[in-house]
Amino acid sequence: MNMTEKILAKAARKKEVQPGEIIEVNVDLAMTHDGTSPPTIKTFKKIAEKTGQKRVWDPKKIVIVYDHNIPPNNIGAAEFQQITREFAKEQGIENIFKHGEGICHQVLPEKGFTKPGTIIIGGDSHTCTYGAFGAFATGMGATDMAMIFATGKTWLRVPESVKIEVNGEFQEHVTAKDLILHIIGELGVDGATYKSIEFTGETIKGLGVPDRMTICNMTVEMGAKNGIIEPNKTVIEYLKKRTSQKNFEIYTSDPDYDYHEEFYFNIDNLEPQVACPNSVDNVKDVKKVIGTHIDQAFLGSCTNGRFKDLKMAAEILKDEKIHDDVRMVVVPASSEIYLKALKEGIIKIFIDAGAIVCNPGCGPCLGAHMGVLGPGEVCISTSNRNFQGRMGDPKSKVYLANPIIVAKSAIKGEISIPE
Amino acid sequence: MNMTEKILAKAARKKEVQPGEIIEVNVDLAMTHDGTSPPTIKTFKKIAEKTGQKRVWDPKKIVIVYDHNIPPNNIGAAEFQQITREFAKEQGIENIFKHGEGICHQVLPEKGFTKPGTIIIGGDSHTCTYGAFGAFATGMGATDMAMIFATGKTWLRVPESVKIEVNGEFQEHVTAKDLILHIIGELGVDGATYKSIEFTGETIKGLGVPDRMTICNMTVEMGAKNGIIEPNKTVIEYLKKRTSQKNFEIYTSDPDYDYHEEFYFNIDNLEPQVACPNSVDNVKDVKKVIGTHIDQAFLGSCTNGRFKDLKMAAEILKDEKIHDDVRMVVVPASSEIYLKALKEGIIKIFIDAGAIVCNPGCGPCLGAHMGVLGPGEVCISTSNRNFQGRMGDPKSKVYLANPIIVAKSAIKGEISIPE
Repeated sequence: MNMTEKILAKAARKKEVQPGEIIEVNVDLAMTHDGTSPPTIKTFKKIAEKTGQKRVWDPKKIVIVYDHNIPPNNIGAAEFQQITREFAKEQGIENIFKHGEGICHQVLPEKGFTKPGTIIIGGDSHTCTYGAFGAFATGMGATDMAMIFATGKTWLRVPESVKIEVNGEFQEHVTAKDLILHIIGELGVDGATYKSIEFTGETIKGLGVPDRMTICNMTVEMGAKNGIIEPNKTVIEYLKKRTSQKNFEIYTSDPDYDYHEEFYFNIDNLEPQVACPNSVDNVKDVKKVIGTHIDQAFLGSCTNGRFKDLKMAAEILKDEKIHDDVRMVVVPASSEIYLKALKEGIIKIFIDAGAIVCNPGCGPCLGAHMGVLGPGEVCISTSNRNFQGRMGDPKSKVYLANPIIVAKSAIKGEISIPE
Repeated sequence: MNMTEKILAKAARKKEVQPGEIIEVNVDLAMTHDGTSPPTIKTFKKIAEKTGQKRVWDPKKIVIVYDHNIPPNNIGAAEFQQITREFAKEQGIENIFKHGEGICHQVLPEKGFTKPGTIIIGGDSHTCTYGAFGAFATGMGATDMAMIFATGKTWLRVPESVKIEVNGEFQEHVTAKDLILHIIGELGVDGATYKSIEFTGETIKGLGVPDRMTICNMTVEMGAKNGIIEPNKTVIEYLKKRTSQKNFEIYTSDPDYDYHEEFYFNIDNLEPQVACPNSVDNVKDVKKVIGTHIDQAFLGSCTNGRFKDLKMAAEILKDEKIHDDVRMVVVPASSEIYLKALKEGIIKIFIDAGAIVCNPGCGPCLGAHMGVLGPGEVCISTSNRNFQGRMGDPKSKVYLANPIIVAKSAIKGEISIPE
């Protein structure tokens, strides 16, 4: 079996699972955010009414994070947060992060919830991020989340597996974001529909936590059920610092495992990449779109809002001024990151350059607030999606790139690469 | 004549003006923000169409600040900002602050626009704030602002004058905010309708810039046309630092001036004040509402978002934790203030305490974003208005208080006074 199958087999209390098989698994952790908690709660209450079971299966295994509309940007958002905090109180769910702690996909790792070998189901499509820690992690809708809240179980079709092996070294200004954009460009947005993607190869093995998270985060953009990377020492060290646990269940794919598909990438010659409007797989070398006018630059999101990302951008922005026509929005992915950036003078660099630094959260990634695009506006963004209207008006356009490209473009007022 | 009349007479090119007289004055500075620029522009364009005059009277005398919805919180806000920046470009208006520089009423003084003896008309009701610098400053609607954009002139009815003399010393935890709340409580929300309020007395004379701004800012809450304080040395020093100008036109009221009304306050026994829902004149001693449950605490706004305010709150919040049920939103009034607070460790204190620190701007004061109240939610706020639904749902409630009371209440989860 491969890593994913081994985790699923354990969770299904089976010796072995096969791709295509329908299994029922025990869920180790269920997560919902301020946007998906209320519909989950609504369905949970319907279930409770029918079954008479009024309590969630295990309040300790539920984590709630307010991140999409924080602080609430309208009455509806405030009401969603009210409903959620009342439910959490009533059910004794203590792991509720409602005061701007950050994006769920950043807060869960920081608080030590993303353990290798576990099943994590989240009410958010980018739950696949936790594959960076060797967990099986995937997003589900409110009905499925409600069933998990009630029973602690869910059903899955064991996904076929795709191996993506990456070798070679990153060139200057080329990052994990460029790698995953390149992969999505090659495979397409439906290139891994309901498949499990396992990343391996020397390049991947050498990556630290932030880069692994960036890569796994975007697997859903190819339609994957999950993305996963075998944890290395760095990942384990990260987790040890954030949990009381000293040992974790690390699964390894059998060396002779026969993947459904295999892809090989060498990044020695990879240049900075950009996903052009309006599809995440419309990927080109940045140099092909240099000079494209931009109105907004967004640095943040669960893809690229980590300290490493802010630092990369700050190195470009130091002693520079953002172009007068550009609105640059910076949203650290968590308050831990914000505080670190504060301490290291990075927040000051952003403000001095003329950026608007917002509180941690999802920010403008989903067009909810904090930098919504108007008609015809163009944004270069470190986030993960550029569908039509994703960040605002249906006539706006989004280019996805790495933090260096976003920062440099913000200075120039058009898509640019550092010299 | 009094100060206000002397300024108006000069601007009307008359030797003398009388209360009740209709005059036409030259405007020294016109200000609009992201919310009021587009309707002003729309009307200006109508005027231009009729008159053939396509240019504003003087682009150097117009200042535009984006503060109400920054960064844009929805498509409409983004569109408003687009319209405004295109107009500014087209008209050569260079004083446009669109990258989160802060609230107009904070940015204008910081950038040296609020000169004593001048006429400043703003497309925002709290334009009266600049009376703190000895200017005649008042808010007008979009139609009037458009006429000013076109002609540089406006008409005014010379207001009757109210003298408010304040003597005595502030006790611990009592601030300029408590004084102005107390005054509003005594005079009522219609206590100075279309009148000019002149503040004087030993207490007022001893106040620095931030406190003078807090007091003048809230004169409109009594219906006043303007509020004004004779500038002292501190005010002049502040202005000298922020302009190339060394001399300013300081007007003084004639000692024998016969005011329409006079009020005398002694603050020796003044306690912390709170304006209770749903009216700014529903003012009580805070001790009378101690224990009132709160859901949100807001520190910011053009009334109390200055460095002094943040510092007062930080002294209370240092090494403390905000109550788990309270969402505390902190919005520095400008990026200058934000940077100073950053440097002095104050932003860190807020984050460590569990507050959500947002980018400079108006924030949740007007219920637009960044902490909108849900049904039944209660907020204690340093801002200036608590009308029904001001900060969100019509069933929410707002208490107005000083930064110390807001910070302490945030810790306790209910309205509180430091011991």
